[in-house]
Amino acid sequence: MNSFGNVYRLTSFGESHGPAIGGIIDGMPSGISIDIDAVQSALSRRRPGQSKLTTQRREPDKVVFLSGIFEGKTTGTPIGFIIENTDNKSQDYKHLQNTYRPSHADYTYDKKYGHRDYRGGGRSSARTTASIVVAGALARQIIPGIKITAYVNAVGKLQLDKHYTELDFSQIDKTPVRCPDLTAAQSFIELIEETKKKGDTVGGQISCIIQNVPAGLGEPLFDKLQARLAYAMMNIPAVKGFEYGSGFKGSKMYGSRHNDIFNPDGSTKTNFSGGIQGGISNGMDIYFKLAFKPVATLMQPQKSIDNTGRIIELEGKGRHDACVVPRAVPIVEALASMVIADFYLLQKTKTL
Amino acid sequence: MNSFGNVYRLTSFGESHGPAIGGIIDGMPSGISIDIDAVQSALSRRRPGQSKLTTQRREPDKVVFLSGIFEGKTTGTPIGFIIENTDNKSQDYKHLQNTYRPSHADYTYDKKYGHRDYRGGGRSSARTTASIVVAGALARQIIPGIKITAYVNAVGKLQLDKHYTELDFSQIDKTPVRCPDLTAAQSFIELIEETKKKGDTVGGQISCIIQNVPAGLGEPLFDKLQARLAYAMMNIPAVKGFEYGSGFKGSKMYGSRHNDIFNPDGSTKTNFSGGIQGGISNGMDIYFKLAFKPVATLMQPQKSIDNTGRIIELEGKGRHDACVVPRAVPIVEALASMVIADFYLLQKTKTL
Amino acid sequence: MNSFGNVYRLTSFGESHGPAIGGIIDGMPSGISIDIDAVQSALSRRRPGQSKLTTQRREPDKVVFLSGIFEGKTTGTPIGFIIENTDNKSQDYKHLQNTYRPSHADYTYDKKYGHRDYRGGGRSSARTTASIVVAGALARQIIPGIKITAYVNAVGKLQLDKHYTELDFSQIDKTPVRCPDLTAAQSFIELIEETKKKGDTVGGQISCIIQNVPAGLGEPLFDKLQARLAYAMMNIPAVKGFEYGSGFKGSKMYGSRHNDIFNPDGSTKTNFSGGIQGGISNGMDIYFKLAFKPVATLMQPQKSIDNTGRIIELEGKGRHDACVVPRAVPIVEALASMVIADFYLLQKTKTL
Amino acid sequence: MNSFGNVYRLTSFGESHGPAIGGIIDGMPSGISIDIDAVQSALSRRRPGQSKLTTQRREPDKVVFLSGIFEGKTTGTPIGFIIENTDNKSQDYKHLQNTYRPSHADYTYDKKYGHRDYRGGGRSSARTTASIVVAGALARQIIPGIKITAYVNAVGKLQLDKHYTELDFSQIDKTPVRCPDLTAAQSFIELIEETKKKGDTVGGQISCIIQNVPAGLGEPLFDKLQARLAYAMMNIPAVKGFEYGSGFKGSKMYGSRHNDIFNPDGSTKTNFSGGIQGGISNGMDIYFKLAFKPVATLMQPQKSIDNTGRIIELEGKGRHDACVVPRAVPIVEALASMVIADFYLLQKTKTL
Repeated sequence: MNSFGNVYRLTSFGESHGPAIGGIIDGMPSGISIDIDAVQSALSRRRPGQSKLTTQRREPDKVVFLSGIFEGKTTGTPIGFIIENTDNKSQDYKHLQNTYRPSHADYTYDKKYGHRDYRGGGRSSARTTASIVVAGALARQIIPGIKITAYVNAVGKLQLDKHYTELDFSQIDKTPVRCPDLTAAQSFIELIEETKKKGDTVGGQISCIIQNVPAGLGEPLFDKLQARLAYAMMNIPAVKGFEYGSGFKGSKMYGSRHNDIFNPDGSTKTNFSGGIQGGISNGMDIYFKLAFKPVATLMQPQKSIDNTGRIIELEGKGRHDACVVPRAVPIVEALASMVIADFYLLQKTKTL
Repeated sequence: MNSFGNVYRLTSFGESHGPAIGGIIDGMPSGISIDIDAVQSALSRRRPGQSKLTTQRREPDKVVFLSGIFEGKTTGTPIGFIIENTDNKSQDYKHLQNTYRPSHADYTYDKKYGHRDYRGGGRSSARTTASIVVAGALARQIIPGIKITAYVNAVGKLQLDKHYTELDFSQIDKTPVRCPDLTAAQSFIELIEETKKKGDTVGGQISCIIQNVPAGLGEPLFDKLQARLAYAMMNIPAVKGFEYGSGFKGSKMYGSRHNDIFNPDGSTKTNFSGGIQGGISNGMDIYFKLAFKPVATLMQPQKSIDNTGRIIELEGKGRHDACVVPRAVPIVEALASMVIADFYLLQKTKTL
Repeated sequence: MNSFGNVYRLTSFGESHGPAIGGIIDGMPSGISIDIDAVQSALSRRRPGQSKLTTQRREPDKVVFLSGIFEGKTTGTPIGFIIENTDNKSQDYKHLQNTYRPSHADYTYDKKYGHRDYRGGGRSSARTTASIVVAGALARQIIPGIKITAYVNAVGKLQLDKHYTELDFSQIDKTPVRCPDLTAAQSFIELIEETKKKGDTVGGQISCIIQNVPAGLGEPLFDKLQARLAYAMMNIPAVKGFEYGSGFKGSKMYGSRHNDIFNPDGSTKTNFSGGIQGGISNGMDIYFKLAFKPVATLMQPQKSIDNTGRIIELEGKGRHDACVVPRAVPIVEALASMVIADFYLLQKTKTL
Repeated sequence: MNSFGNVYRLTSFGESHGPAIGGIIDGMPSGISIDIDAVQSALSRRRPGQSKLTTQRREPDKVVFLSGIFEGKTTGTPIGFIIENTDNKSQDYKHLQNTYRPSHADYTYDKKYGHRDYRGGGRSSARTTASIVVAGALARQIIPGIKITAYVNAVGKLQLDKHYTELDFSQIDKTPVRCPDLTAAQSFIELIEETKKKGDTVGGQISCIIQNVPAGLGEPLFDKLQARLAYAMMNIPAVKGFEYGSGFKGSKMYGSRHNDIFNPDGSTKTNFSGGIQGGISNGMDIYFKLAFKPVATLMQPQKSIDNTGRIIELEGKGRHDACVVPRAVPIVEALASMVIADFYLLQKTKTL
């Protein structure tokens, strides 16, 4: 249940305030020269405390590999890794021991398990996504020709209305909000800062584009490529929606307009399909969009209950992002990389 | 890869024009008195040819159980079943042998497998969802207190704008379009008929509500309840998007508005969370929405290519729905039932 | 739980006296021209009623493929198949409805499930191995260079004491007892007939040799090649023991004698390892041996109990083999084929 | 592939000479008070350097839990753990970099992966079983009423010929050879010491008894209880054979003698079945026996080859056991515990 992937598989462990989080990557092919810096860079993009937009928790998020890599190359055996939790101010959470915070997982974990690690959200903390970023960065090294790019395309009601082909992806990391359109980025940043000042939080959206995917990845049923992508993404904390290709807008269209007419080389003139037909990649760009709800932890007082049902007043405490989407960008890319790498390896078994 | 579920698992087989489709259900608890009529009813709701809105292919869609049920009760051993393909006019498809239809899976299957059953879309046909309906109808009998209801809430640009609590679910099957608001239903029907006359097709949306779910279902990572629901639904042919709870709208909100404040009994005053927090059910209604693209088969001529890249003109032929959403309603309910039943059984292993 | 294999996977269903048994094979590569006759031949080797040595139940055991094969070649989609139960004289079992037969699964199924199909052993019947034979015969067509041969090497206390390299495998099917040494075969046949006359049953052993396996198949932990083979074989009804390479005798040896010294080409001078080192094939012959207990159904009266604990006298009834090993030979080959095919396909994912 | 178990699952990582080995346990129920000392004791029974009989490698084998346990109790989330490799004298192995040792996995790993960690056998080292012992010790805490006992019953040609019911299990750890019959133990010890003096190694056998198992554990097909046990045990390095109940001797018996006649309470007068019928436990003692080959590393010179096929002379070097069975006892118990715990949890899903 804590594993993700069929052939390329991450099994993950860890809570926000335990000694460490980490995971095991199974199914990594052997003989691949690992670019450790690329892994660490990906982690640093997700790391808290990287800009004034994000939580002030300071974690070096240094990954330590314990197995599966020898003399710089993968051996084909499982890759165990850990990331220490260093700046875990657990005392910040003592007051929450018997408290259910609104729209957090405190209540549901208690109902499910009876006993929970209440510090920093425990297993439900977004901190667990650091292990995903590690596994994604390694997955990327299996599929180097394939280009996976995510960026922020909306914060609150502000929306970037350009098609991805009009954007310069090299600009994404130019601002801490990770939107490649610098004008939109500026307005997003302002909205987040304004929201933060009020002690409030705000939602947003991320777009992701997967380019240079060979035709033929994905399974007919039940492992359609879009189903695995949706599954992957809906595991990111705060994601409330997934659409690919024409998405929700596509539901309003007529077939005569929506059908993607072929060029003689098998590419299509339009791409409402989003690079996937019948669950299988067709070689066109795969693109999808994610909706993120606003972070549940506010820096303002809220009413809530304790575990006896008594109504209490929560103060705003802890260290949290006012908007989660900028730091979610590398997580989206990591999961997309894992999905594609998994199908890529699996496809090798489909013909003799 | 053709299996769905962890503890309660369907493995499916079959193509549109082979002798039969079917599946094996593993993990069905023993001693359950099976309501075969309920299974057959669910199948009939999905069946082609049930109304003038749907394809004229006439399939009795009679399920035959081959194992796992003895003297009317489950034995706990796998339930094998088949549904014969009777009205498979394969000659309708001979002309498509070397043809790639736009926005179908012909091209991608060819790229993936090299050899494909081109008749009626083969494995990519929506006909394979009949097996899902069988497995879903049985899953429902594991979780009888839980109520799962899907309905059509949009056809093309026409949208039903009422909250589900304002609707009378008993009206859903009063019209062939399966929208419980009869005024909206009428307009949906008119739009579909109009579209059909033009030889065109149109997309739509389905809402699904899961009620009386006990708190505690779902896994922290990677089997969040919403992730399994999204995965399930994105395997339905033509689905382009999934959102639950506040969904895409939620990404535009502030946290101070979006947080669901608790009542003393653990229920919440609002339900933007959509009944799931941290991937685990909280006892509130779970609700989600799906976007369906328009059917790709048109009853009008289209340009396309054959497998040599030559441009050809496709005539509109075959028997197809002008809008897929009415018949998709029971499929959505079936998959939701399977997901909930699976987590329900799994949860039994979470405490001693 | 009713599935076997990782990449090449059989999911099976069926009971002895239901309408049919069958299964779904997932992971079959596409584009393979299927030799249906070879499948049917394998089934006929397992079929009851094939000689005077075996049960008189007469089943044609005709496999019907329902999907995944089109115009004689695999499509890469799941292969559904059924085998009808035709000669199921269920009335033979009515008297057993409330009875627990000694050393059968009647008692354990009742304790596990509460409700069971008591006819002919239900799901515990060796009849379910017919589906295994189908899946094995198809698996064999994935790995045509690899040669898998099983034969009877002991019946009761009679043992064939020749090394497999001294035997002429082409003689195996010359006698109904499937022992390639015709002198030993004759003595085995006599022992079985003698045992049968007494209404008794007798155990036996099967040897299996896998030749021309490429080095590199198997996984370090937990899917060692010998572990998967043992797992496969221990699922055959009546198997009580598995040993490979030097086996139990190897436990009595010294390392200085047991170590297999290399030739310059990587082959070894001896093969106590049995073709597997560290869980991975080394290119030498893989060989293993299985112990089968005597069939539990006797043609003589026995004391037993009913489901209220009352002591009863069982008459000898039904149609059963006096010795199970001759008919188990194709089952052993089938499972070995599935294990090797599975690892063979998986190995394709181990390097880029 | 590096995972073991369905509901209670260990995923393991690590090589002999990397920084650490470890694993993740998924599916541990919540709310269990963990006896950490019991885990550490089990590890110490497996630890190298514990007596003069075993290798002189000195590892404290201290397990560090990183997640899933909070305030002494399980939380139901995955339990990550590591065991550091401290005394890894890697320089002992430098000379083996291009060498294939006889009957080790050097050659097969090279053929499989192309790139391998040659130090101390890498992933093929028996050191990886320490993670199994941790997972087994925790599994045991799920099933506290069930008693699992393994002991050495043979070293080389010396065999303990008593039935397990005649033995006093409390004597097992009285001698370093872990045989409860102290006379036999003495002769075993002498044989091992004698063998060690010669720089040779010797094989042996282990018996395991599982008592107080409730009837109903195990699955019909393909997860028969004996199949899972065999699979588990055959993953232990050096195991060449598995038999349960009457085992290989049972293959020589007649059915009239082998059938286990019932007592009125459902227990049986004999137990040739070994506590399992039709793959499912019947409440009687489960017992099985394992054959271990002699350790491949000798303290005497041997001929071998390097990776160019050149014949070389290996000196006897390193630190190794002359007989592996005493230290394998806790590994056998651990795997048996995991198998039983897994089926125990799974069984909760079999009825509503």
